[in-house]
Amino acid sequence: MHAIVIDKPGGPDVLAWREVPDPVPGPDEVLVDVAASAVNRADVLQRQGFYHPPPGASPYPGLECSGVVAAVGSDVEDFKPGDRVCALLAGGGYAERVAVPWQQVMRVPDGVDLVEAAGLPEAACTVWSNVFMIGRLRKGETLLVHGGASGIGTLAVQLAKAFGSRVVVTAGSAEKIARCLELGADEGIDYHDGDFAEKVGADVILDIIGGRYLPENVRALKTGGRLVVIGMQGGSKGELDLGALLTKRASVHGTTLRPRPVDEKGVIVRGVVRNVWPLVDAGAIRPVIHARVPMDQAAEAHRILESGEHIGKILLVG
Amino acid sequence: MHAIVIDKPGGPDVLAWREVPDPVPGPDEVLVDVAASAVNRADVLQRQGFYHPPPGASPYPGLECSGVVAAVGSDVEDFKPGDRVCALLAGGGYAERVAVPWQQVMRVPDGVDLVEAAGLPEAACTVWSNVFMIGRLRKGETLLVHGGASGIGTLAVQLAKAFGSRVVVTAGSAEKIARCLELGADEGIDYHDGDFAEKVGADVILDIIGGRYLPENVRALKTGGRLVVIGMQGGSKGELDLGALLTKRASVHGTTLRPRPVDEKGVIVRGVVRNVWPLVDAGAIRPVIHARVPMDQAAEAHRILESGEHIGKILLVG
Repeated sequence: MHAIVIDKPGGPDVLAWREVPDPVPGPDEVLVDVAASAVNRADVLQRQGFYHPPPGASPYPGLECSGVVAAVGSDVEDFKPGDRVCALLAGGGYAERVAVPWQQVMRVPDGVDLVEAAGLPEAACTVWSNVFMIGRLRKGETLLVHGGASGIGTLAVQLAKAFGSRVVVTAGSAEKIARCLELGADEGIDYHDGDFAEKVGADVILDIIGGRYLPENVRALKTGGRLVVIGMQGGSKGELDLGALLTKRASVHGTTLRPRPVDEKGVIVRGVVRNVWPLVDAGAIRPVIHARVPMDQAAEAHRILESGEHIGKILLVG
Repeated sequence: MHAIVIDKPGGPDVLAWREVPDPVPGPDEVLVDVAASAVNRADVLQRQGFYHPPPGASPYPGLECSGVVAAVGSDVEDFKPGDRVCALLAGGGYAERVAVPWQQVMRVPDGVDLVEAAGLPEAACTVWSNVFMIGRLRKGETLLVHGGASGIGTLAVQLAKAFGSRVVVTAGSAEKIARCLELGADEGIDYHDGDFAEKVGADVILDIIGGRYLPENVRALKTGGRLVVIGMQGGSKGELDLGALLTKRASVHGTTLRPRPVDEKGVIVRGVVRNVWPLVDAGAIRPVIHARVPMDQAAEAHRILESGEHIGKILLVG
């Protein structure tokens, strides 16, 4: 088969579409003929040499895919050849085929085409695990989403609204904010306009900035608030005001999805299929797709992601 | 009645035993003839003018007491005059009588004398709510307790051991460490000996130091670890390494007990009566009492607490 190979760390052009050995599924794995994958910021970090695949994972980039089941391992009961699926991957989505533990495989929700479905797993699992499992967002509470126009942001807005929460987003342009409001956000803040903590009191914050936003995020929390940090685009260290944290009885959580053991990913994936997929089936949540790029032109997809101009997901079509 | 009055902030000698009006219980309140109260660090901060009683609370210090019910409000069903009780207070324990919402009142556990029982409510509610409700310590996990010889520390050691956890304490002297080991701690670290994070990997940390320990506490957390900060004796701000927090999928929680609404305190108190009191009844957990000081000599009790030489609780006997 072909896959995107990274021979040495570097810019988008190091991504090379090349003949590689086919993956061989283990007894617990599903072999997927990939219809599409999608681009995530972790792929850029992997390309740059800053984020190594966890032990045992495919060396090729790609944290999610959609496609058709080609074969299943001897211990797999829930899927069979021919099934239309999408999957959360530890790597290897930028390829014609990928082997993935069955616990990380999901059916394609109703009304979503097979290619579009590649843009759902990472965002749905990230939002479900962080906003709902860790952040325990409840009906009537306020969620603040930084980077509301990202793949994760656009899904967080829709899912939190579907569960009856108030949603405030930050984004970097009027166009991005307008799109978030269309998706259901109650309020949008242009982060160029200064202090967001003056404008919002949040029960849960989903943050991708990290260190630089830490003081302001803590200020923006309400009593009992939960700050969930899933990215560090603004640095890995920041000053934590424990006085404010104690007074507010608040918490700061850091998580990453990719290095978790298969069983933990399985718990998240089952939560997504049970709680998120019915809303997608019903049309209440749609994947927001910015662009479809042929997989052998992955470099172009990375350039779009790094430009920061996109709204929603950038797909790589096989 | 008499109570300890603070006319102006200052040293221990501003604590004056003086005639004051009797408290009048509201419909939801229990009036307690106080047998004893106990000294907490928050009382010292209140005496110094740094910690004001929350709105509606008694102006006198004292966050816990034991005694006999003198009267109950019209809506109180669970207690009656003559009952031997102890209680978590928002203030007013340093007095001959105190009125307290019935939700914060507990029976005195079997085998604990009425005076000793004054040393249980604050420590039991603090440890139960922070280590078990927020920190969700599980059997087989490791708890690190800073200040293991304190009132809270000595109760945390016993309770975590009774629930099947491994317990490591830090303390400031060989004598304090020896006492913690007698109470069941598996390991003691003298904090004068340098970096504790080199010596322990913790699932839950109960911390009273705050800012100064924050970097080292985060380093000491295992994957999935929970740092619960309940005091800031080492400053209110510190550098948080979000990179480590994300890699470990860990969390930092700040809490305080005193300003919480009565209903939240009631949930904690019921949890204590259900989960902690049976272990006290059975003799598996004992209040550790350092000294009994007459209540009109509260200044002396504060001097002992501030010396840091004590192990366990300092009681004020009425």
